Amino acid sequence: MVVIPSPQQIAFAQKLADASAAVIARYYRTGLAVDDKLDDSPVTQADREAEQVMRALIQAERPDEGIIGEEFGAERENADWVWVLDPIDGTKAFITGRPLFVTLIGLLYQGQPVLGLINQPIAKERWLGVIGQGCTLNGEAITVSQINDLARARVGTTGPQYFSERSWSLFNPFQAQGRFTVYGGDGYQYALVATGGLDVVIEEGLKLHDFAAVAPVVIAAGGMMTDWQGQALVKNSVGQVIASNGPVLHQLALAAMHNA
Amino acid sequence: MVVIPSPQQIAFAQKLADASAAVIARYYRTGLAVDDKLDDSPVTQADREAEQVMRALIQAERPDEGIIGEEFGAERENADWVWVLDPIDGTKAFITGRPLFVTLIGLLYQGQPVLGLINQPIAKERWLGVIGQGCTLNGEAITVSQINDLARARVGTTGPQYFSERSWSLFNPFQAQGRFTVYGGDGYQYALVATGGLDVVIEEGLKLHDFAAVAPVVIAAGGMMTDWQGQALVKNSVGQVIASNGPVLHQLALAAMHNA
Repeated sequence: MVVIPSPQQIAFAQKLADASAAVIARYYRTGLAVDDKLDDSPVTQADREAEQVMRALIQAERPDEGIIGEEFGAERENADWVWVLDPIDGTKAFITGRPLFVTLIGLLYQGQPVLGLINQPIAKERWLGVIGQGCTLNGEAITVSQINDLARARVGTTGPQYFSERSWSLFNPFQAQGRFTVYGGDGYQYALVATGGLDVVIEEGLKLHDFAAVAPVVIAAGGMMTDWQGQALVKNSVGQVIASNGPVLHQLALAAMHNA
Repeated sequence: MVVIPSPQQIAFAQKLADASAAVIARYYRTGLAVDDKLDDSPVTQADREAEQVMRALIQAERPDEGIIGEEFGAERENADWVWVLDPIDGTKAFITGRPLFVTLIGLLYQGQPVLGLINQPIAKERWLGVIGQGCTLNGEAITVSQINDLARARVGTTGPQYFSERSWSLFNPFQAQGRFTVYGGDGYQYALVATGGLDVVIEEGLKLHDFAAVAPVVIAAGGMMTDWQGQALVKNSVGQVIASNGPVLHQLALAAMHNA
């Protein structure tokens, strides 16, 4: 049985996105030349403050639900419902001033991602996917593309440097069969799969806070997102992920990787 | 002697950007799943219509000045003043729905780039650089970063696939000395150098319509942009380019490449 988030939980996800966006927008493109490895750099401050404001809202308004945050760890993580937060996914995009970083807000029910929100606070783009209820971009329904052959597939991945040598030897022959590969993008890429702009995204090294929000967005838009064995992503999945526009391209891509 | 564009020419560049943006915004994220190699794909239509509307304005309002356009070629290209147009730089960004493609509008005086405008019509970001007069983003003055050592340098390039094997063997050891490299971005990267978000961008294969507009933006913001021999970019330059935040990092980067 699929358990569906309540209307209150969906509205609350929007509230988290609004609150984090207000924090992040204050820091965007400030002190670009600062050494951002320091603790008080704009990206570090934006990351921490945005997570704090979201955690405070959960504590105040949904105290029985758990939290797993990229910056400040877990609280009540064995609750039935757990919010998974990544305030700034795409740190390098933020640091260099590209409006492609995103805030990721996921909701797990007993370890399964059931709601995902991807928010770009500068371009004011917000994707919301709820399993069983479809996906929207700024309130308008969206769906994945209908491209079903590898030769026409638009492939995305953040960069060659994020693959192990072994994994690159699987990915590289696959991508060579696609139409083209675009690099960069982090969580934004999965939003583009949901919007029909990319057809396959393959990455490794993702953590729960990287995939918990994006998987429901892709799936609710009609796509698929699994690990490299084709298994559903759950709380303890290892971070080798593939997102696609649906079962045909998903199987073609996995077969191309496994035959490499 | 540096010849400076007139206030009328600067205002006219803005008019070209407004007119092209209106065309492009109509096509953005439409028909994402369409086969965009076809002649009537949204990206092809947007590219052509945007250039046509700019060419028509030049014909009507500045009939003595030349035009070199990516889509429709050259007219009066030996005039003292020549407009260089690339309606959609970053075609793959447009095709996949990333708001990082840009419209490039350059103005040459006797073959030298003296004015550059980089326009992102969706995020409504507009960089304007005039040699001798500074650089603005949406009307606000901007400058390059002040990072002067390779180890802290944020490096950008569109992707490994755009280098020849020989050129990659020069670029790769250089980038390994930088703090990190971000891929993707095309003309948008040069705007980020001007804004202080990237410190060095190195690419090859650029054509006149790719660099004529971006070089004045980088230079007017206090940076440098030359070929790989350190020579100023002019109408007939080959397209191996380096943009940086200024002479110190520029020389360090060129030395690192030439010692590779």
